[in-house]
Amino acid sequence: MRVLGIDPGYDRCGVAILEKEGGKESLVFSGCITTDRSTPFEERLGVITKELVHLIEIHEPTICALEQLFFTTNKKTAMRVAEVRGAIVAMMYERGVTIRECGPGQVKVAITGDGRATKRQMILMVPKLISINHDIRYDDEYDAIAIALTASAYMRTP
Amino acid sequence: MRVLGIDPGYDRCGVAILEKEGGKESLVFSGCITTDRSTPFEERLGVITKELVHLIEIHEPTICALEQLFFTTNKKTAMRVAEVRGAIVAMMYERGVTIRECGPGQVKVAITGDGRATKRQMILMVPKLISINHDIRYDDEYDAIAIALTASAYMRTP
Repeated sequence: MRVLGIDPGYDRCGVAILEKEGGKESLVFSGCITTDRSTPFEERLGVITKELVHLIEIHEPTICALEQLFFTTNKKTAMRVAEVRGAIVAMMYERGVTIRECGPGQVKVAITGDGRATKRQMILMVPKLISINHDIRYDDEYDAIAIALTASAYMRTP
Repeated sequence: MRVLGIDPGYDRCGVAILEKEGGKESLVFSGCITTDRSTPFEERLGVITKELVHLIEIHEPTICALEQLFFTTNKKTAMRVAEVRGAIVAMMYERGVTIRECGPGQVKVAITGDGRATKRQMILMVPKLISINHDIRYDDEYDAIAIALTASAYMRTP
């Protein structure tokens, strides 16, 4: 079974494909989709969904895990992230990929055991849970792996 | 030229197709997509995008007009509406339909001449601007017609 973890964003969108076989997880792919700031929002959204369609065609995940909506102080950013999220959810639904939502606290508990873990603690912990064979440039990629690991962990216990 | 006006929502999503020929507008179609509250959010999003794909295949609009994001007191609702909006924008972009964003004030000015017009004033004014040959049940439909009329009006003056 394959889980696609996504940390949605319009500047950078972290993605991770996790494979689970016999209770063991391995990282098939992870990366970060970046978009050009000088292009209109709809084009950036178009780039992200196109790249994601490409990813699911190659890796055929059955589950797509996304962090739940959170409310930041910057409402405009939050609304734009919600738009990216909506585009992803609709596209996955259309292609029969099941959506799993994980709360931010749930992700922190699954990765560090502490619901109030810092971003730094999270990033240090991720490579201890799964073997990563390439350099990671953006935190969004770590976040996507963390989200995929969380969704996978919660599936263990029905 | 045809304009598709949308008032995005996940409970009800107002839609209107306006045709503009020789500077004159006529209403080709308007209605309201409703979704089942008992179904998961992704399914409701799926129903809306599917209905909209159907609409653009039949009516072939070149422009899709949407109201800009606004920030309500209910953040959760606002985020969910933003998700619907994002799903719509990505789908339109994928199909080559140009997105036009109209601010709420811009719509009020275009319809009533008053940027602080009430919802009631808006609803009374819409049928004076365009002939509507059917009963309208939900305000969302009036809003969609108003948005389509606004986008059309702003295109008059390049």
